Amino acid sequence: MTISMYDISVGVFAARLKALASVLTAAEQNAGERKIDPQVFLTARLAPDMFALTRQVQIATDHAKGAPSRLAGREVPKYEDNEASFAELQARIAKTLDHLATFTAADLEGSEDRTVELRLGGREATLPGLQYLLNVATPNFYFHVTTAYDILRHNGVPLGKQTFLGNR
Amino acid sequence: MTISMYDISVGVFAARLKALASVLTAAEQNAGERKIDPQVFLTARLAPDMFALTRQVQIATDHAKGAPSRLAGREVPKYEDNEASFAELQARIAKTLDHLATFTAADLEGSEDRTVELRLGGREATLPGLQYLLNVATPNFYFHVTTAYDILRHNGVPLGKQTFLGNR
Repeated sequence: MTISMYDISVGVFAARLKALASVLTAAEQNAGERKIDPQVFLTARLAPDMFALTRQVQIATDHAKGAPSRLAGREVPKYEDNEASFAELQARIAKTLDHLATFTAADLEGSEDRTVELRLGGREATLPGLQYLLNVATPNFYFHVTTAYDILRHNGVPLGKQTFLGNR
Repeated sequence: MTISMYDISVGVFAARLKALASVLTAAEQNAGERKIDPQVFLTARLAPDMFALTRQVQIATDHAKGAPSRLAGREVPKYEDNEASFAELQARIAKTLDHLATFTAADLEGSEDRTVELRLGGREATLPGLQYLLNVATPNFYFHVTTAYDILRHNGVPLGKQTFLGNR
């Protein structure tokens, strides 16, 4: 078997986004059970200068939609970043999964060597595709998915790592 | 260029562990500046039923030492899990980086198809190497590295995502 760019981008992002959707479903349900305004969770953050839950989900999906698009040489879809409810975050994740479903392994074949142009820390940067995926898109994606989970755990939502991993 | 199991395991773990070492260096320095007992950071957690900082670092290194070893069919080195200071956590990361440095790309060639046996959620499981790396080792690794960072940010350590990414 050869390892494909598809497996390590679309495959990974799709699996983890489905798990993130489960995490958010559990959070919304928990807010209901504890009679907590969902906005409390949606606007919660771990430090005053860190992003709130909603923004964590937005950025996670940004990397998931952006990486395969850039690797395939396609336009990155623009989202409006106006989600303000759990339902809207779920819709954003679903829209991202739909976008991921438009890629085939063939679309990404050879993209490990394709030059990707992007803004990185406010500057234009160019990177080989594999380096962009492994050192920019994937760590950023995992950072925001994990931080979303951590915000909810910090707020008492009963989640386990198996939900984070997508095993239940 | 072909994508190697080495790149997506050893390469990723080593880069992120070096960044984690920088995160911990910044945390220890910040404790000193704020005259906070380092134990406060080392034992901090985001929820009563989540692991403290020390354990997050231990588990992150466990996945980093375990994955390439299992993929190469080597014994996984045993660590004693007795770290109780920033210096000892740094030593554990350094030891893990030394272990990662013993692997060559050739050691992991073809390991995408190798059957890996491990305990997963308390049960024995067997998985093809690539699936183990992408769906078990890597997400777990990122989970604990990110949560270590999140614990420190939550406790006011001035870190930025560029430190998490290893860019400064």
